[in-house]
Amino acid sequence: RIDGARLVSRLEALSRIGATPEGGCRRLALTDEDKQGRDWLLSQMQALGLDVKVDAIGNIVGILKGQQQGPAVILGSHIDTVGTGGRFDGALGVIAGVEVLAALRDAGLTPKRDMAVIAFTNEEGARFHPDMLGSYVWAGGMSVEAAHAEKDSEGVVLGAELNRIGYHGPEQPGFLKAHAYLELHIEQGPVLEGDGGGLGAVTGIQAICWLELTLRGRPSHAGTTPMAYRKDPGLAAARINIFANELTKTISGQLANSGVIRVEPGNVNVVPERVVMSLDLRNPNDAPLAETEAAVRKFCAELSERDGIEISFRDLARFPATPFAEELIAGMEASAAELGLPIRRMISGAGHDAQMMSRLCPTAMVFIPSIGGLSHNPAEFSTDEDMVKGANVLLSAAWRAANA
Amino acid sequence: RIDGARLVSRLEALSRIGATPEGGCRRLALTDEDKQGRDWLLSQMQALGLDVKVDAIGNIVGILKGQQQGPAVILGSHIDTVGTGGRFDGALGVIAGVEVLAALRDAGLTPKRDMAVIAFTNEEGARFHPDMLGSYVWAGGMSVEAAHAEKDSEGVVLGAELNRIGYHGPEQPGFLKAHAYLELHIEQGPVLEGDGGGLGAVTGIQAICWLELTLRGRPSHAGTTPMAYRKDPGLAAARINIFANELTKTISGQLANSGVIRVEPGNVNVVPERVVMSLDLRNPNDAPLAETEAAVRKFCAELSERDGIEISFRDLARFPATPFAEELIAGMEASAAELGLPIRRMISGAGHDAQMMSRLCPTAMVFIPSIGGLSHNPAEFSTDEDMVKGANVLLSAAWRAANA
Ligand SMILES: NC(=O)NCCC(=O)O
Ligand SMILES: NC(=O)NCCC(=O)O
Repeated sequence: RIDGARLVSRLEALSRIGATPEGGCRRLALTDEDKQGRDWLLSQMQALGLDVKVDAIGNIVGILKGQQQGPAVILGSHIDTVGTGGRFDGALGVIAGVEVLAALRDAGLTPKRDMAVIAFTNEEGARFHPDMLGSYVWAGGMSVEAAHAEKDSEGVVLGAELNRIGYHGPEQPGFLKAHAYLELHIEQGPVLEGDGGGLGAVTGIQAICWLELTLRGRPSHAGTTPMAYRKDPGLAAARINIFANELTKTISGQLANSGVIRVEPGNVNVVPERVVMSLDLRNPNDAPLAETEAAVRKFCAELSERDGIEISFRDLARFPATPFAEELIAGMEASAAELGLPIRRMISGAGHDAQMMSRLCPTAMVFIPSIGGLSHNPAEFSTDEDMVKGANVLLSAAWRAANA
Repeated sequence: RIDGARLVSRLEALSRIGATPEGGCRRLALTDEDKQGRDWLLSQMQALGLDVKVDAIGNIVGILKGQQQGPAVILGSHIDTVGTGGRFDGALGVIAGVEVLAALRDAGLTPKRDMAVIAFTNEEGARFHPDMLGSYVWAGGMSVEAAHAEKDSEGVVLGAELNRIGYHGPEQPGFLKAHAYLELHIEQGPVLEGDGGGLGAVTGIQAICWLELTLRGRPSHAGTTPMAYRKDPGLAAARINIFANELTKTISGQLANSGVIRVEPGNVNVVPERVVMSLDLRNPNDAPLAETEAAVRKFCAELSERDGIEISFRDLARFPATPFAEELIAGMEASAAELGLPIRRMISGAGHDAQMMSRLCPTAMVFIPSIGGLSHNPAEFSTDEDMVKGANVLLSAAWRAANA
């Protein structure tokens, strides 16, 4: 059994690092706050007697030796947050992973296989793109070199930040072979709470497409330039945002968000010259997502033609819908049943490191309810009781996988 | 007569300060570039033997003593630019003012009244609000203290910047009493060029209303939050931008621009928490401008109610339509006629320091054509010939006013 009080107090300790006045956390990847969180985590892992390693993309790996050689059962998540982050997103999964290994040590149990917990770098994609970058590199989807070259919105280079905070480690990402990957996470949406507050056995993760659009118009004087003569990329961005939003009403399961909108030169009396905007498009199925993207691109082409705005596209992230491994999903259900906890199957709206790890090995996740369905919001909240329930399911499923 | 070659070479010298790769200028008010421009201007005025003074808001005043005591004929404009500024906007008026006084000195002529040229602080309103701030303070529309407390978008305080660049002068703004104010400026719009390229005798300046809107929604996760559950201030900002734009099609003479749009936290996968946006609304007449503003406020109230977005308003600038003095407008026409130059009456779309000075004394302006109607754009352009024509009309009108 998980030591619930210790789990809660570890989560509280981590949530003090980068705490915001609103009660949330701001630990953007590879910032000073992230470094502090990493240093704290490293010391927790070391105190547990784990074999702790850092790889070339900054993933932190704590290994518990099993009785036999071979691929490990890996638990993990991330400790970076978005700008308006909460205390639970990611942090819970890493700390629960640590507590699972601590519980085995406390009980004097040695699993057949090696077990490990990993804190992956830059899962949120709030600072560097794509999201799930650390696990993507770990899974071989992106080279270390390409990841090091990524820049944040101020042009700061990922590789330089990794060196600055001292987390450019010697290991090759993926150095530890994976037998299975399991992750506990908060749901970050309203489904479980609306359904009575049980746990979620995650069947897979929906498809994700992140686009960056750069719109170029013609800067001009807002007091002298006749309306018909303007080429306003700000207005074009507004139309695209609304168009994408309207699409979600007709394309089944479709979500759309424009979270980044940067307008230049950004002066009251200057018709904008240039806008950079993002679109986060998601759908449980690949085909309707492709349909949405095609509709957005067509709308942009027409707008560009009609209003004289140049529009260019860049992929920030593109991940297909990812089903998890049936035997592990069933394992989560069996573990919950053993513990007498209600659990239902559901798909994940958010991307997770598990989505990347499923490229390497059988993968599954367990969700606990998010109060009010809120996440990426300082008011993000899950109860201590649910956290401990989720961690116990993770422990049981991990033990099962490590000894199978 | 104006020394045309010297006028052109002075303009070129100033345009090298803050020059951008695109061929324009970026000398935002009270930045290092603005300081360099000011230092250069001060040395030019001193070399001419003018009595040079700086007031508490950083306005630079160069005085040529006349034969009698009493109010002066003041010429002026500004040397600050917007972020995507050109070489002519403002700079031409200040340099032409200097050349008018130089021409009188060269000709050994002493006017009856004192004459002066002023470079006013922060005319553009690109960095600090309102626009025409230096002349507004000079005219008593705003206190020095209130102006010093203005902040730029990064929270930097105007008074501190004035001290930093060494332009917090000892004089009281408005210390030099005004008999008349005359200003040469580029049109910044397409009217004169479209009408054969003659000069413009400006009859007045249209009404200006600059609003800053702060929209607050609820940050949430873009992958897990159902569309119906979102409170997205970015989407609300898009709707307001488009609504204001549509209004310009039905309200006669109406212009609208949203030049500032700042989205927080600005992460791809976070439904925005907060948007700050500007609206620049203008109309030649006060009544339709008031109608536009009322329609925007009503739209926002409805949107706020319907979509759960909190919207607050702040005035950044608010100036009524400003007619100029008939005798001086006629004086501009007479001066052009004397010189054999075609001139037509027109209203100014842009705000100018003249709009503030007309609170103090009879005021008028002369415009020269802007090629392609472009301004607040690095490609802003007027011919040397037109600049010299405009400066000669200014000289003649100023001489007339200074000896009447
Ligand atoms: N779990 C989570 O918030 N991941 C960030 C990536 C995403 O936007 O889905
Ligand atoms: N002339 C000029 O561009 N003035 C700036 C104030 C305005 O936006 O009209």
